[in-house]
Amino acid sequence: MDERVREHADVLVDWSARVEEGDDVILSVGPDAHELAVAVAEKLGERGANLLATYSTGEITRAYLRAHDGDFDENPAHERALFENADVYLSLGGGRNTSATADVPSETRQAYGNARTEIREARFDTRWVSTVHPTRSLAQQANMAYEEYQDFAYDAILRDWESLADEMANMKDLLDGGSEVRLVSEGTDLTMAIDDRTAVNSAASVAYDSHNLPSGEVFTAPYATEGEVTFDVPMTLHGEAVRNVRLEFDDGEVVEYDAEQGADVIEEILETDEGARRLGELGIGMNRGIDRYTDNILFDEKMGETVHLALGRAYDACLPEGESGNESAVHVDMITDMSEDSRLEIDGEVVQRNGTFRWEDGFEA
Amino acid sequence: MDERVREHADVLVDWSARVEEGDDVILSVGPDAHELAVAVAEKLGERGANLLATYSTGEITRAYLRAHDGDFDENPAHERALFENADVYLSLGGGRNTSATADVPSETRQAYGNARTEIREARFDTRWVSTVHPTRSLAQQANMAYEEYQDFAYDAILRDWESLADEMANMKDLLDGGSEVRLVSEGTDLTMAIDDRTAVNSAASVAYDSHNLPSGEVFTAPYATEGEVTFDVPMTLHGEAVRNVRLEFDDGEVVEYDAEQGADVIEEILETDEGARRLGELGIGMNRGIDRYTDNILFDEKMGETVHLALGRAYDACLPEGESGNESAVHVDMITDMSEDSRLEIDGEVVQRNGTFRWEDGFEA
Repeated sequence: MDERVREHADVLVDWSARVEEGDDVILSVGPDAHELAVAVAEKLGERGANLLATYSTGEITRAYLRAHDGDFDENPAHERALFENADVYLSLGGGRNTSATADVPSETRQAYGNARTEIREARFDTRWVSTVHPTRSLAQQANMAYEEYQDFAYDAILRDWESLADEMANMKDLLDGGSEVRLVSEGTDLTMAIDDRTAVNSAASVAYDSHNLPSGEVFTAPYATEGEVTFDVPMTLHGEAVRNVRLEFDDGEVVEYDAEQGADVIEEILETDEGARRLGELGIGMNRGIDRYTDNILFDEKMGETVHLALGRAYDACLPEGESGNESAVHVDMITDMSEDSRLEIDGEVVQRNGTFRWEDGFEA
Repeated sequence: MDERVREHADVLVDWSARVEEGDDVILSVGPDAHELAVAVAEKLGERGANLLATYSTGEITRAYLRAHDGDFDENPAHERALFENADVYLSLGGGRNTSATADVPSETRQAYGNARTEIREARFDTRWVSTVHPTRSLAQQANMAYEEYQDFAYDAILRDWESLADEMANMKDLLDGGSEVRLVSEGTDLTMAIDDRTAVNSAASVAYDSHNLPSGEVFTAPYATEGEVTFDVPMTLHGEAVRNVRLEFDDGEVVEYDAEQGADVIEEILETDEGARRLGELGIGMNRGIDRYTDNILFDEKMGETVHLALGRAYDACLPEGESGNESAVHVDMITDMSEDSRLEIDGEVVQRNGTFRWEDGFEA
């Protein structure tokens, strides 16, 4: 076994999920994540946690959903009971085909999701962490050779998370103290209110309200968005290529949109519900271990010198106690490159220019 | 997809487990049983059942058990809740190495099993069915080419179960009406009491108290065993080859044993507990679709012209209401060939000679 697989398991179990003796752990395993699952199982055994492995693959989902009449039972009791009694949920993504569910009608997918709200909430109530095992299918999606992709993925995952958390604390402090964020770049001039919102220092650990491995971003829940933004980082949404999406906001809501490619997908997303036309997240990518786009949001949105915005649902961790933020059935992240001719301002003060933060060498206010 | 995979899924879901709309189904998937799992998922979708897939592999079990200190939590809440809320449990065996857990100490394995009694009971309370997907690893264990093994497995699985059930009803009637069974073959002359016991017509369906696919045996729970038996069908027990085991019974209990190979494994089994020295099962193999030994008990014990006896636990279905039969932590089946110089008698009457039953052509009393 590649020693990095074991290191990945160590980071996931100890740093990310903080697994302790007696924890009831659900380990969700993709077909090609088997090797990582074995390493994680070993680690869970060492910790004296209790392990139940589930199997997650688009191919089973596709077969099931396409055969079903679409009238799904609400929150099946066995699955709900499993999640309600779990302490930790570790998702090890690793399919064989990132397009495995491409021919499942979106209504079916949506009906299935809607019937499982309480299961999803029970899952979010655990110490959950999503990661991926570097697979050939993900390498292909990234246009990379397999070994090249492994190097890329482990550079992103096997970081000194403690010191990255310290650096990201600078950004969190600025956002927590600020009232308004402004993004300026080619095709982008956008302002958002962040008053009363709390930023999450997403350091790939549940101890930081962070549930992705890799992570490496600071995010908050903006509102009252005004202006325009262009997402110039190419990506795949709902199985379709999307290029240069431009959104125009007025009073917090999208009032105009276009895209060089994939405008129909954007339309579909915007029409999901009212919340889908408002922002749920502003995230600032700070993981410099991620040095290129790989068409995988888990990595892309964490990349240094980028920012991302999500249409749809806001995370509770960013909101004042007891207040609910933007609500929606969707949460769709899109990314803007900030490495050139760009600046990020908080309350009129430049905190990042051309990708360089104010606490870094070479920063020019 | 090989059309037989779909037929296998049809038999499993409809004939074996009798899945209905709204059933909460756990689908346990081995790594190489993926293709069958996809076919079963499709069928479960058609039926409107609710699907949760678990992942079952010796490699994860091994890593977990070897790393654990051996002091296991009793019946972890998440897994127990899952099984207690399930209606159906379908196990699709299909690992990549039948010896994957060979280096797990037997004490660890036993401690793990003992800590999970209630989970196991909850599983037995569902409509559970065990089957296997024909894999390369099982082909290897059977000393067969892969395609040859597929043909073998589907011959055993894709039977006309209804008509086999009708034929097996003859045997069940004889056992239900009888008081004593006698087996005579080379190295075997054994009598067992079956008074008050009910035979199970194991026709690969929960509707017949039968939980294996393939099945094709009639079994009961004997007691007061006297005499000697030789198990001349070669098999692997606890990862070790076992050949020509001979047991001698007095007053229902093993009083002597030897074996041409693997005597230490037999000793280990006999010393598990008191019940391990008594019989829990007499089974009569009646599936003529199984025409050779493949060192896989799921198939071997169902083979036509064989009988098998199990040391250890008896099945409740064979016992008078409210009565408990032989109890043990183990249930170990061993097989005797009855095709030559052999007879099976019930109350002194020959019902099978040299493999031929009394209702079949060529039978000689």
